[in-house]
Parts: sequence; structure tokens; C-alpha cells
Amino acid sequence: MEGIDKNKMEKTIAINAGSSSLKFQLYDMPSERVITAGIVERIGLKDSIFTITVDGEKIKEIIDIPDHEIAVQMLLEKLINHKVIGSYDEITGIGHRVVHGGERFPESVYIDDQVIKDIEALSELAPLHNPANVTGIKAFRKILPDVISVAVFDTAFHQTMPPASYLYSLPYSYYEDYGIRKYGFHGTSHKYVSERAAELLGRPVEELRLLTCHLGNGASIAAIEGGKSMDTSMGFTPLAGVSMGTRSGNIDPALIPFIMEKTGKTAEQVLDVLNKESGMLGVSGISSDLRDLEDEAAKGNDRAELALQVFVDRIHKYIGSYAARMNGVDAIIFTAGIGENSSYIREKVLRGLEFMGVYWDPALNQVRGEERFLNYPHSPVKVIIIPTNEELMIARDVETIKNNR
Amino acid sequence: MEGIDKNKMEKTIAINAGSSSLKFQLYDMPSERVITAGIVERIGLKDSIFTITVDGEKIKEIIDIPDHEIAVQMLLEKLINHKVIGSYDEITGIGHRVVHGGERFPESVYIDDQVIKDIEALSELAPLHNPANVTGIKAFRKILPDVISVAVFDTAFHQTMPPASYLYSLPYSYYEDYGIRKYGFHGTSHKYVSERAAELLGRPVEELRLLTCHLGNGASIAAIEGGKSMDTSMGFTPLAGVSMGTRSGNIDPALIPFIMEKTGKTAEQVLDVLNKESGMLGVSGISSDLRDLEDEAAKGNDRAELALQVFVDRIHKYIGSYAARMNGVDAIIFTAGIGENSSYIREKVLRGLEFMGVYWDPALNQVRGEERFLNYPHSPVKVIIIPTNEELMIARDVETIKNNR
Repeated sequence: MEGIDKNKMEKTIAINAGSSSLKFQLYDMPSERVITAGIVERIGLKDSIFTITVDGEKIKEIIDIPDHEIAVQMLLEKLINHKVIGSYDEITGIGHRVVHGGERFPESVYIDDQVIKDIEALSELAPLHNPANVTGIKAFRKILPDVISVAVFDTAFHQTMPPASYLYSLPYSYYEDYGIRKYGFHGTSHKYVSERAAELLGRPVEELRLLTCHLGNGASIAAIEGGKSMDTSMGFTPLAGVSMGTRSGNIDPALIPFIMEKTGKTAEQVLDVLNKESGMLGVSGISSDLRDLEDEAAKGNDRAELALQVFVDRIHKYIGSYAARMNGVDAIIFTAGIGENSSYIREKVLRGLEFMGVYWDPALNQVRGEERFLNYPHSPVKVIIIPTNEELMIARDVETIKNNR
Repeated sequence: MEGIDKNKMEKTIAINAGSSSLKFQLYDMPSERVITAGIVERIGLKDSIFTITVDGEKIKEIIDIPDHEIAVQMLLEKLINHKVIGSYDEITGIGHRVVHGGERFPESVYIDDQVIKDIEALSELAPLHNPANVTGIKAFRKILPDVISVAVFDTAFHQTMPPASYLYSLPYSYYEDYGIRKYGFHGTSHKYVSERAAELLGRPVEELRLLTCHLGNGASIAAIEGGKSMDTSMGFTPLAGVSMGTRSGNIDPALIPFIMEKTGKTAEQVLDVLNKESGMLGVSGISSDLRDLEDEAAKGNDRAELALQVFVDRIHKYIGSYAARMNGVDAIIFTAGIGENSSYIREKVLRGLEFMGVYWDPALNQVRGEERFLNYPHSPVKVIIIPTNEELMIARDVETIKNNR
């Protein structure tokens, strides 16, 4: 009886802290059942918003939350108040999403003081994200100092890329002196869907060549061979690669000085345009939201149509590129908001890949957010929608590290 | 008899004028026989060099040549002196290579005053090249005012690209206001080898999907469907696309502000690094010359090896990308200095493309600068080395425009 009770009390919380937000998901482990989830928004601003889902009911509260520490305090109190947990002791692991692990962190790690220092040092490579992630880590350490906490990095999965993939064709000293290389992002998602794909295919991931398309407001493609990331479309930052909601993806680098000269903007301001006013928003002039663009395109708006074409064109070409990288693929995976939900984008991306053995059934493609094979049974290359689950990956890594200590 | 004499006197000169150089090739037309060729170097500097090949003998002269007009004057005198021509009247057409034709020039044109103005206006897009090209045009017009002259643009062949290929994922106004789009370069070469490939394949170019790899010190790849360029790797400028001798090709655009901050360089200075100190030179730290790198790599130099790997990796992936663009290819063409001569690079680029039907014979690949099929007979995708000939294309365009006037 005591054993069962103890198991029931093993709960792991997965945390994704942004500069003014904190997302959480509480898992019963090792069953991987989601107990509750929620988000704290507008931390440090007036009228912060605390949202938590308990027993399927979404509860929202508006209250000033001055900092992350107070947010964590409040979150824990809510868990008690809503009887989600009986006491703090039930939380036996905390997993933190950290955007940038650089070359220092090729995998998830137990967080100690040195790890925090190292994550802070990597802030140079992710100035918007790593400091926020550290804020979340510190807040939990202060309030639950004795609970094991683990950092799970967006970049870690891609650390297996070989040098020919990750090195830019720049003076080599830039790599040595400034850490300039391709890091890649969305690693936790690419890893999750590649492992899940192997399960669905009933084959060991070590045997497979997978092409994973994480298409959300940010979008990246990865070439995963034998379970290892061999290449990915994002680069030194998440700006690179395919066109996205508001991000340009790759452009001729010579355009930056040209745009500076033409517009009088500084390099930083141009970078801001590339990050926030480009992509589908920039081309369409309407919206960065795919649903708006699909609606407008359907009504005959040419620029919306064009924005979608550009988005699709880049992804389609990356698929060919990474097929060449692995000399063919066993399965193409679609995940994240657009990948899981837009039959329109999947259709356009997949059209015209018969040369590499991709045969898919448009009828199967009429689906949203559901795990499903889209290929014809005879297709050499399988096509699968797999909803991503980065939080679960975080909880699993906490569990693994906890059990190995 | 008179007819034959007259034909013998129809000579077309193809000109490629740089800021301090002028390359020329004189053709007997329509036989397309090369009569003579040469180059004037260091124009405007002390000790300019005039080189001309007559009857297979290379004649070199060192003399101060203060400007392009004097260079042209001297060139014409040499043609008479060396008895290459009897009188200037024999030159019935002049073709000028012009780097940037923007959207204004989708094909070669007869040069009149307006055309010169338009080419000058396009200098903004090619500040190093178009002004030099115009200098060459003006010098010939002054000395041979009555001879038909034609401008042949590096960008023209790529003007058939659809908007989804040529538009960047940037604010649309940048395209409207500043002409920011992909133009592509090496068009004359891509066009030449694609037409020649159709001849060699014995099929109309309209039926073919060709993937042309122009690999020289500058390098670009093109997807050519039905004789029309559908996409190409260079962009707004020749910096974009694959890694090259000294050019970076595509990098994460966010790196420019980052490098500026780290090194204290201006945007223009960083651009200079990307153009002149990157590519194979940057990665290897040794040389931008492929032969040096092949030698060094063979001796075990890791960085030379790495530079070659990066170069090959990008080209290999572009091949997959453009195969996806056209849903497969009928032939892959290698041309220009590296493409024609380096069996090493061709081998590495071609390795691992069986997934798209590329089967080639390593034994056939041991060849330099020779027109040759490299594929096994049964290979669905043919692989062909075709030495490029931009000068001949220029002479042909002069002939066509002359005959249609």
C-alpha cells in the first residue's frame, strides 16, 4: 500500500518560462498522465493573468504578479487550493525548457549552480530567451530548493550534426572565437516526433531516415538519421531557414547592408524587420496567422496567396534538400500548429514529391491535430502527422535523470 | 564568290569588360569558329597587360593603357596588325556581357542610348559590374559607332522564375520600392549548358527538367524546366546560395549584426568579409583555390578537408532541393572551372543521390574539361559534364538580333 501511495505522489512539473510568462504542465510519473496545465501571463505588468485547467475546467484569474518568484509561489498555492496536490512534497521533479544550450549541453542536465552559470553565459547566443529561462529556474530553486530540477535544451538534440552541417562558410576564427555555427532549435519537438514515428512505424529509430517538419509560428525542418539530427533549417538563431509567420528565413546576406542604406535603419533595426515584419506577414501585408491567409487567399487575395506559396516553396525545397542529405527518407513527419492542423499547407508541401517515393492520399489529409498516416499503403516514403509534445519530453528527461542519480 | 567573301568577313566580337579589364573573343559567324581571343588587364594602372592569341600563339605586351577607350583602340589595331582582320568593316557585331539587367531586361537587346541609360540605372543593383560594362559599351560605340552592338545579361535567363521563387519573405514593399528580389546570375552559362544538354540528350529542351551546376570561383545551381529557369541559388547578389571560393553563400541573416557587434566592423565591412574572406578560403584558412585545397586535404590537412566538405554539402543539398522543385530531374549538368575539371568534387557531390535515380560510373568521372556523360546507361537521371561557353552565347545572341532587325 505504501508503495502505491508513494508512486501516486511522484509528480513532475514541466516549465517553460518566458520573459513575462510561465507555462506549466504537471505530470503523474511514470504514468505520464497530465494532471493539470496552465500559464501565467503578463508577469511584471499590471493585470497579470493566471490560467489553470483543473478537471477539464479552465480557471482564469486577473491579478498583479510582479515577478516570476511570485508567479511560482502562486502556482504552487493554486495546486494545493484546487486539491491538485496534497503537499509540495508530491512534486519530485521539475523540468525547465531552456532555449540555448550551445555546445556546452548536448543533452538534458541536472541543474546545479554551475549549470545555471553556464546557461547565463549562453545568454549571449539567446538574449531574449535564456535570461527568462534562468529566472524560472531560480524562482523554483528558491521555493522548492530540495526538488531535483533538470534543464532541457532546444538546441541539444541537434548537437549530433556533423561539422559540414553546422559550420558556416565563414572565417573559421568566427567559430572558434564567437561560437558562430548552426545550433538549430525545436530540438525537443524534433526528437519527440522522431521517436514517436519510430514507434508508429514499428521499427527501431536507429534504422530510420526521418524528415521532421515542425511548422508553427516558428518553423524548422530536420534531417534525422538513425535517431540523430544530421541537419536542421534554423541556424545560429531561430531566424534562419524557411519562411515563417513573421520571420524571413534565409535571405541573401547582402540585403542587410542594402536595406540599411535604403531605409536608413541600423543593422539591429533591419534584424527586427526580419524577425517581426517579414515572413508571411511581410509578403501578404495582412497577417502572420496562417488561418487568416488561407481565408483571404480563398477570397482571391493575391498577396495572401503569394505569402502561402512562398511559405510552401521553401519547405518543399528543404524536403528535397534533406532527402539528398540522407539519400532518401523513410518518413516525413508534420508537427506543431500548422503541421498538425493545416491540410492546405500539407497538401501544397507534399505535392510533387513522387520522384522521391512520396505517394499520399488527399482524402486522409483532411484531418486536424490527429496522429495519422497520410500515405498510400504502397508508398515507399510514409507521411505522418504527429502532434508534438515537448512538455512530455521534458517530464521524461526529468524522470530519466532522477532515476539515474 | 562574292557571297563567300562576304560571309568570311562577318565577324562578331564578344566583350566582357570589368573595371580594369577587357576580355574579348572574335568569332567568324555563322560558323562560330573562334578567330582570336585575349584580354587587356590593369587598365588605368601602370604596366597594363595586353594579351592576344593569334594562330595558337599567345602574344603579351606590357604598356600603360589609361582607359577602356584606349584599350579598345589598341585591340582593334592589334587585330589589323596581326592580320586577324583586314579592316574594321569586317566586324559586323559586338556583344557585351552585362551583369545586371534587373527586371527591365528579360533577354538580350540591341543597344541604343536608352538601353545604356537603363543599364546605368541598374548600377545600383550591381555597383561593381554594370558601370564597368557600360564603360566597355561606350568605348566600342565611340570607335565603331555604326556596328550593331548587343547587351547580353547575366540575369536575363532567370527572369522566367515564378514569384514564389524570386520573392524574398520580406515586407512586400521592399520588392516594390527597392527592387529587392532574387535575380540570379550566370544565366548565360546556365542557358548554354541547358541547350547543349538537350542536344546531347537528343530531346527538345521543352520536355526536360535540368539541374545545372555552374561551379567556378563563383558557383550557382539552377533548376531549368522546359528550357526555363525556375529557380537558382544566387540571389539579389552573387553572394547568395552555395559556399564558394571566397563567398559565404547563405548564412543566418542574424549573424551580420552579431559579427558587427563582436568585431566592431560596419555592415559594409562585414559584407566584405562575406564576399572576400569566407567560403573555402574562410573555412580552410589556406586558399580559395580548389586545387590547393585538394592537395592539402590529400596531405591530411583537416581544415582543407572541412572546407571541401562544406562546399560539397551545400551543392549536394541544392541538388535535392531543386529536384523537389521539379519533381525529379532528367539530367544533372556540371560546368565551369570546378564543375568541368574536378572529379573529386563531382564525386562527392554525386555520392548518395540514388534515392532520386542518379547512378554514375566513377570510372567515367576521371576526366577534365571534356564533354562527357558520367551516368551508367540505365540511370534514369543522366549526369553530364558540359564545358560552358558564355562568349559563344553572346556571339549567337548578336547574330540573332542582327538577323532580326
